[in-house]
Amino acid sequence: MRVGVLTGGGDCPGLNAVIRGVVRKGVQEYGYGFVGFRDGWRGPLEGDTVPLDIPAVRGILPRGGTVLGSSRTNPLKHEDGIRRIRETLAKEEVEALITIGGEDTLGVAARLSGEYGIPCVGVPKTIDNDLSATDYTFGFDTAVGVATEAIDRLHTTAESHMRVLVVEVMGRHAGWIALHSGLAGGANVILIPEQRFDVDQVCGWIESRFKVRYAPIVVVAEGAMPKDGDLVLKHGTKDSFGHVRLTGVGEWLAKEIEERTGKEARTTVLGHTQRGGTPSAFDRWLATRFGLHAIDAVRDGDFGKMVALRGTDIVRVPLAEATAKLKTVDPKLYAEAGVFFG
Amino acid sequence: MRVGVLTGGGDCPGLNAVIRGVVRKGVQEYGYGFVGFRDGWRGPLEGDTVPLDIPAVRGILPRGGTVLGSSRTNPLKHEDGIRRIRETLAKEEVEALITIGGEDTLGVAARLSGEYGIPCVGVPKTIDNDLSATDYTFGFDTAVGVATEAIDRLHTTAESHMRVLVVEVMGRHAGWIALHSGLAGGANVILIPEQRFDVDQVCGWIESRFKVRYAPIVVVAEGAMPKDGDLVLKHGTKDSFGHVRLTGVGEWLAKEIEERTGKEARTTVLGHTQRGGTPSAFDRWLATRFGLHAIDAVRDGDFGKMVALRGTDIVRVPLAEATAKLKTVDPKLYAEAGVFFG
Amino acid sequence: MRVGVLTGGGDCPGLNAVIRGVVRKGVQEYGYGFVGFRDGWRGPLEGDTVPLDIPAVRGILPRGGTVLGSSRTNPLKHEDGIRRIRETLAKEEVEALITIGGEDTLGVAARLSGEYGIPCVGVPKTIDNDLSATDYTFGFDTAVGVATEAIDRLHTTAESHMRVLVVEVMGRHAGWIALHSGLAGGANVILIPEQRFDVDQVCGWIESRFKVRYAPIVVVAEGAMPKDGDLVLKHGTKDSFGHVRLTGVGEWLAKEIEERTGKEARTTVLGHTQRGGTPSAFDRWLATRFGLHAIDAVRDGDFGKMVALRGTDIVRVPLAEATAKLKTVDPKLYAEAGVFFG
Amino acid sequence: MRVGVLTGGGDCPGLNAVIRGVVRKGVQEYGYGFVGFRDGWRGPLEGDTVPLDIPAVRGILPRGGTVLGSSRTNPLKHEDGIRRIRETLAKEEVEALITIGGEDTLGVAARLSGEYGIPCVGVPKTIDNDLSATDYTFGFDTAVGVATEAIDRLHTTAESHMRVLVVEVMGRHAGWIALHSGLAGGANVILIPEQRFDVDQVCGWIESRFKVRYAPIVVVAEGAMPKDGDLVLKHGTKDSFGHVRLTGVGEWLAKEIEERTGKEARTTVLGHTQRGGTPSAFDRWLATRFGLHAIDAVRDGDFGKMVALRGTDIVRVPLAEATAKLKTVDPKLYAEAGVFFG
Repeated sequence: MRVGVLTGGGDCPGLNAVIRGVVRKGVQEYGYGFVGFRDGWRGPLEGDTVPLDIPAVRGILPRGGTVLGSSRTNPLKHEDGIRRIRETLAKEEVEALITIGGEDTLGVAARLSGEYGIPCVGVPKTIDNDLSATDYTFGFDTAVGVATEAIDRLHTTAESHMRVLVVEVMGRHAGWIALHSGLAGGANVILIPEQRFDVDQVCGWIESRFKVRYAPIVVVAEGAMPKDGDLVLKHGTKDSFGHVRLTGVGEWLAKEIEERTGKEARTTVLGHTQRGGTPSAFDRWLATRFGLHAIDAVRDGDFGKMVALRGTDIVRVPLAEATAKLKTVDPKLYAEAGVFFG
Repeated sequence: MRVGVLTGGGDCPGLNAVIRGVVRKGVQEYGYGFVGFRDGWRGPLEGDTVPLDIPAVRGILPRGGTVLGSSRTNPLKHEDGIRRIRETLAKEEVEALITIGGEDTLGVAARLSGEYGIPCVGVPKTIDNDLSATDYTFGFDTAVGVATEAIDRLHTTAESHMRVLVVEVMGRHAGWIALHSGLAGGANVILIPEQRFDVDQVCGWIESRFKVRYAPIVVVAEGAMPKDGDLVLKHGTKDSFGHVRLTGVGEWLAKEIEERTGKEARTTVLGHTQRGGTPSAFDRWLATRFGLHAIDAVRDGDFGKMVALRGTDIVRVPLAEATAKLKTVDPKLYAEAGVFFG
Repeated sequence: MRVGVLTGGGDCPGLNAVIRGVVRKGVQEYGYGFVGFRDGWRGPLEGDTVPLDIPAVRGILPRGGTVLGSSRTNPLKHEDGIRRIRETLAKEEVEALITIGGEDTLGVAARLSGEYGIPCVGVPKTIDNDLSATDYTFGFDTAVGVATEAIDRLHTTAESHMRVLVVEVMGRHAGWIALHSGLAGGANVILIPEQRFDVDQVCGWIESRFKVRYAPIVVVAEGAMPKDGDLVLKHGTKDSFGHVRLTGVGEWLAKEIEERTGKEARTTVLGHTQRGGTPSAFDRWLATRFGLHAIDAVRDGDFGKMVALRGTDIVRVPLAEATAKLKTVDPKLYAEAGVFFG
Repeated sequence: MRVGVLTGGGDCPGLNAVIRGVVRKGVQEYGYGFVGFRDGWRGPLEGDTVPLDIPAVRGILPRGGTVLGSSRTNPLKHEDGIRRIRETLAKEEVEALITIGGEDTLGVAARLSGEYGIPCVGVPKTIDNDLSATDYTFGFDTAVGVATEAIDRLHTTAESHMRVLVVEVMGRHAGWIALHSGLAGGANVILIPEQRFDVDQVCGWIESRFKVRYAPIVVVAEGAMPKDGDLVLKHGTKDSFGHVRLTGVGEWLAKEIEERTGKEARTTVLGHTQRGGTPSAFDRWLATRFGLHAIDAVRDGDFGKMVALRGTDIVRVPLAEATAKLKTVDPKLYAEAGVFFG
């Protein structure tokens, strides 16, 4: 049996660990052959392949990025996308596809499996941790670690100077990175996309912080938005989901804080440093196990499924269900963190 | 209401994060007062206290160790231990105790709550992750991270030289740290206390590794033991649980490997570096949430319970149940890792 | 003998290591007493002191920031500044001052020593490494390390996506951090304040990079400026030195690159994460030795001097000389790095 | 012109950065061709080569180890070693050799250049920093960083428990790593090979430490030896230099401390973790510059020389001189550190 593997969507530490887990177990325990498809769905669409065997996965466990390349290509938007994929699979004698990706990539896999009878197994991937049906996605722990280390460093600056320090972290639609790194780093304000913030309330927290101790640290998710709609209209842009998004909310917020409180404010934008580099031990463990269980699902002929973490177990859930809705921060969880604000 | 807090047993990154979570929420949301007891159960036994309020918990979140100190004192082994604890609690007007510790500390808390009517809430703590009833304990992720980083570094040495590299990690009775760091680090052999190892099989893996690629890395838990009973009798010692334990298994194994394979072998003993230093972001998050939920249990009068992680939820479980048996590595999980051996 | 210590100017990892070195040696070897002055020159100006003895310096070695606090107060700008300082020193029975700071703080110390007979010894401090007379200042190695780790992480993102990644690092007047981290991180373009850059040349390097390999990484010092004066006039602001400075050069450059090359570009602004957090081993070593040698200078009565690193030796140089001119990047050194551009 | 490159001796972070610097500048600025020799002097001896061009050095900057492999082969110990090297160089049309290595590798290069007219340029490499004629060697800063981080972690354990923590670091003949990491980590005792230690004095420091504060941390270089000759004779082994070396001095010292002070002692042996993994920013910078300057020396026809760091400059020194004697820790420098003992 020959199995195809592809990685789609944004960069995420742990992709290579999944690929390695899939190939090591597939070759050694089940005797499968593998074909790597280059750049996500573009690979099977255009018949662009890379060799994928034991030597090809050596040494890739600790490396960020993906040896298969990635793209946002959507084969369902090509008129004859399905036919071309079928042709590639036939030509390569591939009988099953392991698709590693986020909402978009897995959404395609769900439809290929469900509507077109192309046997797919999914592996969830999103740095933002906003996929339902799995407790965590790999990459998230690494991103939280990078952001937390940055906040740790800012604390000593905050101790010596009377400046507000704003840290903008990833998270367009879900505030998981902001919430976890903000709590782990001991931030004094955490702002997430799930709940519009009130700049005056933020300034209130900042001022009360200054009264009892050194300067405050504000963690803001890139997708967080102020309550005041006009501001959004003035500064915001529409993203591909049609959501209005404030560009550079960190920089914008720092300026508002300076104007309203009279305190100096400085911004750090962590950007892509959160999604690159070597994965954390947790992410390597999770990604490796996802890989081992994905190839088991292939062996079991259990297609149309995605592997997922539940507690400490890896389980299988229907792909369609997994991508149905975004996993956003529970208001209760956010409220729990509120005890540390101000 | 006044609440006492103590930390018992071995060092573990995240203890301070628990204490901070307890105090911040207790003071700010419930208006409680706090008393810190010094050095685990020695504190209430001898009436040794430290002030515990908002200023006392500032800045302690990222710090390893415990601001309350710790010890292995067991009040049940003192003839009038219970009476003395009651006296201290009465004198300090403490109506509830939050006890943060491992098997021993929580075992005492279980009996104090169950048999003597002293209201306790437990917070589980073990670097070894071997407590039942919780998916993870804080400190474990940090230890795995330290061990994984060490293994990462050893890989480049292994690439350039023809030496076997043995890494001895923590884990007397359970192999969680060895298993997780071994998988995350891409070790070629992982040896855990749950399953006696066969030195010849280990040497076989090592030799097969040399054939296809550079030198192998062997991760061995400090409590791992070879199959051959005589060796154990010759080199082993009995620990406080009455288990025979091989002293310095890493050093011993390296010598055996050298003799049997003729390859040079070198040992790294990570020792206490695994349980010190700043906690990982995951451990800070978990420890903070444990603290917030422990004080909630106090407020609810829900004593004789321990907070625990289940998936992404914090739940409460009976203390007695939590400490009933050690959580060891599931043989299936260990077998899963076997695909990477050799 | 009683010695005063103060830290002035911006935050810098290693300040506490200096203070500890001064106090440990001063107390243990010379039997001196110490007075800490709070917030730089504000301390002696207003008579604001903190106790400074062996217990006060315990555990501070690995901590960023300064236990003495800092400020940019300049006593020479106060009409009766000198008189007030003399009064404080007399009242506190302080016979010598150790002043730890950058250009401004040391400039004041030079004049106090030279013109007013107030015995000062200086310890150089600048994250930017732009002080003449010393090979390195502490804090710089830490900042370079933080920036290099960020660049490392960006490489894996660059490998997987076709985006230009711009990293803005510290350095208003000197490009040392950009140069060192850019070289250590394998950046494809490094832009420094010492040499105005040509946006079209930058775009040329970017395009040639895309031709042979994955996306380029551009490291730009915050003080770097494009050749085109008009741009500067449009976007720039004057800083306290009267230099026109482009605000947010990273963000600005990313937009220019997008417009001119048609490639997506993303910006990371590391900001104050570069000057906070625990110092690197090198910085702790350097700062500790600066502290030990500064107190030796006091014992020798060798005032008006600053300690400095020359090779592996700590030497003493006249304060006046040390602050005379900025140490900027030698054009030859910058040219040397040019082999890696594009 | 074609240039050969080889790396000899032990593993050291930064080797790949040198190779990359040599090749990038040699190809791009001087139009040279390159030949990589595999496994140190074994390569030219046996005619074992690897292709070495721009694609071969891509992405290797942050990686530990050496893409050329290494060995301790000494061609001067082969009867016709010189003749075979000449043959290989002639066959490969190599007109100059860049040899990257320590005492042994450079010693061979010195004789090849001086006695046999084979044009060599040397690049110094030793993790131990014990080569004369250069302020620092790359790899050393990385090793010190690894050891310092370990000591940092041990501090929090020392704070919570009453145990002596012994850390054994690298350094057979020179105590640079012990001295720098001990000072940077705030160790309470530092023991180096240059000065035999007195176990009773060590125990005295330990006991005085316990009196004023938490448990002490002892950093001991692997080559450190106690004063008592009998102990050495009983436990020691002779190394290849004929020096008697105590095997496992850390473990041995911990036991002595336990016996003499009655305190528990634990040992951490960092081993090869100190010489593997990604190089620090400082080491990448130094190694890169060494590479750039080594190829300049080739272009200048300046053979029989080694590049070296003096202050912030890269200079050239005669190979023969550079390897004449070991650079050990100056007793004055060691005495300077003594203020922190106990």
